[in-house]
Amino acid sequence: MSHDRLLRALRREPVDVTPVWLMRQAGRYLPEYRKLREQAGSFLDLCQNPELACEVTLQPLRRFELDGAILFSDILTIPEAMGLGLHFVPGEGPNFHHPVRTPDDIAKLTMPDMEDSLGYVPAAVRLIRRELDGKTPLIGFAGSPWTLATYMVEGGPSKTYQHIKALMYNAPEALHQLMDLLARSVAAYLNAQIAAGAQAVQIFDTWGGVLTPSAYREFSLTYMQRIVEQLEPAPDGSTVPVILFTKGGGPWLESMAATGCHALGLDWTIDIDEARERVGDRVALQGNLDPAMLYARPDVIRDNVGDVLRRFGHHPGHVFNLGHGVTPQVNPDHVAALVDAVHELSAR
Amino acid sequence: MSHDRLLRALRREPVDVTPVWLMRQAGRYLPEYRKLREQAGSFLDLCQNPELACEVTLQPLRRFELDGAILFSDILTIPEAMGLGLHFVPGEGPNFHHPVRTPDDIAKLTMPDMEDSLGYVPAAVRLIRRELDGKTPLIGFAGSPWTLATYMVEGGPSKTYQHIKALMYNAPEALHQLMDLLARSVAAYLNAQIAAGAQAVQIFDTWGGVLTPSAYREFSLTYMQRIVEQLEPAPDGSTVPVILFTKGGGPWLESMAATGCHALGLDWTIDIDEARERVGDRVALQGNLDPAMLYARPDVIRDNVGDVLRRFGHHPGHVFNLGHGVTPQVNPDHVAALVDAVHELSAR
Repeated sequence: MSHDRLLRALRREPVDVTPVWLMRQAGRYLPEYRKLREQAGSFLDLCQNPELACEVTLQPLRRFELDGAILFSDILTIPEAMGLGLHFVPGEGPNFHHPVRTPDDIAKLTMPDMEDSLGYVPAAVRLIRRELDGKTPLIGFAGSPWTLATYMVEGGPSKTYQHIKALMYNAPEALHQLMDLLARSVAAYLNAQIAAGAQAVQIFDTWGGVLTPSAYREFSLTYMQRIVEQLEPAPDGSTVPVILFTKGGGPWLESMAATGCHALGLDWTIDIDEARERVGDRVALQGNLDPAMLYARPDVIRDNVGDVLRRFGHHPGHVFNLGHGVTPQVNPDHVAALVDAVHELSAR
Repeated sequence: MSHDRLLRALRREPVDVTPVWLMRQAGRYLPEYRKLREQAGSFLDLCQNPELACEVTLQPLRRFELDGAILFSDILTIPEAMGLGLHFVPGEGPNFHHPVRTPDDIAKLTMPDMEDSLGYVPAAVRLIRRELDGKTPLIGFAGSPWTLATYMVEGGPSKTYQHIKALMYNAPEALHQLMDLLARSVAAYLNAQIAAGAQAVQIFDTWGGVLTPSAYREFSLTYMQRIVEQLEPAPDGSTVPVILFTKGGGPWLESMAATGCHALGLDWTIDIDEARERVGDRVALQGNLDPAMLYARPDVIRDNVGDVLRRFGHHPGHVFNLGHGVTPQVNPDHVAALVDAVHELSAR
């Protein structure tokens, strides 16, 4: 690979400049995405069509000097493949026609067949790898079991987590049964992406931060660890780095680092120097500019990029990213300012 | 006062049993509240009518053995008094007709007259104190300057904090001017509540947790500290304890404790034994059961109340509470189970 600084940084090897990619770097803030989306139909149509998913994945790489591509897909493809009836309500986000509410509902679920019902994902991975032609590494991803369970039980986004937490507190065995199924499904799903060519994978634990410390360990971290343990090497035999990202996971970095993962994604509520001090050299760190920084002027963005780089310091193992995804209101020129600042200010 | 264990615990003095009150203990989960609300009209009508605010404040005390009453009001009364046009959009929450977006908008704002435009609040405090007749202490409260500014600039609830963060990153001086005005207004507002009879006060920093560590110190904590420094003693000369509550403030407890406040409110994402270890004997701690625990069965609630009590241990200075407010879907019988469990399991 001609451009491998992302993978080198994830392995904590020296790099020429700090690599950068952004969560949700492909998406609604890009006019070319909005145009394609209008032609294609729904968001799910985009995800499930390998050619379109490939095109969307590549869009930000044509504009910005990004060091990684990330598969364009949704975190809820697995529950969708389980038959829950995923659909998107404008202004509200993802919803399921058939939420999972009771131990009986859980008992009826089975692991989806990766080829029959999720084959469009490895198909997109193969296509993207071919198009990237070794120039930029491709990151695969999945939602964490806890995050998938939250959406499946709530039936959509929630502010109170009423249903999933009632299940967790009143029927923990049933929830463990669901989590076990999801962990096996996510591991198989990520392994299918790896077999198709994903060169790193990230587990998005969007909702781990709404748990108490003990519930986080019992219902989120344990199952992410099982996935990490089940991941297979790449077709060429090399280890595929896995990045764990729990939004709001700042208090639990030490436990996350102990799962065997290769890197931790950090949100913006912790200073990266403090995070580095706490986890030491065990893992690489990814992050962690406030995503709202992209609403600031380019010169302010540049200063704050410099601050994150200085805090991390001259150590191996930093992948620059936002602390969460790019939002739809962002001006693409500000993303360019961020990416360029990372490379210019980190040049050794 | 015949029933002063809440105030004793806030002063870290020994108590017979752990005192308990709950954030949003008066509200939509109570049928008697919903009935009164139907008769009264809007939520703001309830807040601005001292007799009705008094009645709502007392409702949960008739049902449960609570150790504190909390003034029924809204955190956005100050911006409302500044003329921003507060209204409530069903299913969406508070909104302002005239959000504050630019340095010019900020320059036009002035501190509201406490008597003319907010006199209904101390009037409610006086009425509630008379009705409580020394049996239960009354807690006053206000939103933190940062939280008020967030609503004022965004114009309503936000997921991205686009406008307030653009202002913070691009025009920090203008935001500091707004924060200064808000800190002076909140201090005057809490002092008016204290003069009218509030026996403890809490500052609700609902949105401090969306900031980076340095922005939290600069834009939220600094201004809460200024308020703490400006609070006056009660009419009888005694010190009025002040409780700081930043949702998501777990990483910053040491700095919060150093403001001179008397107690810290904890959300549920930190174990209270860890919090106690970190802040030592400097402040009392309030919290911190997961508010979603109220969706669990009463026996599960009881076990988890016991867990929080055991974690805090036999030290002075614990006020039992949830980590955030009671939600509308909660069964009042579960609140009774919680309150009774706190008293029974903490009896020395």
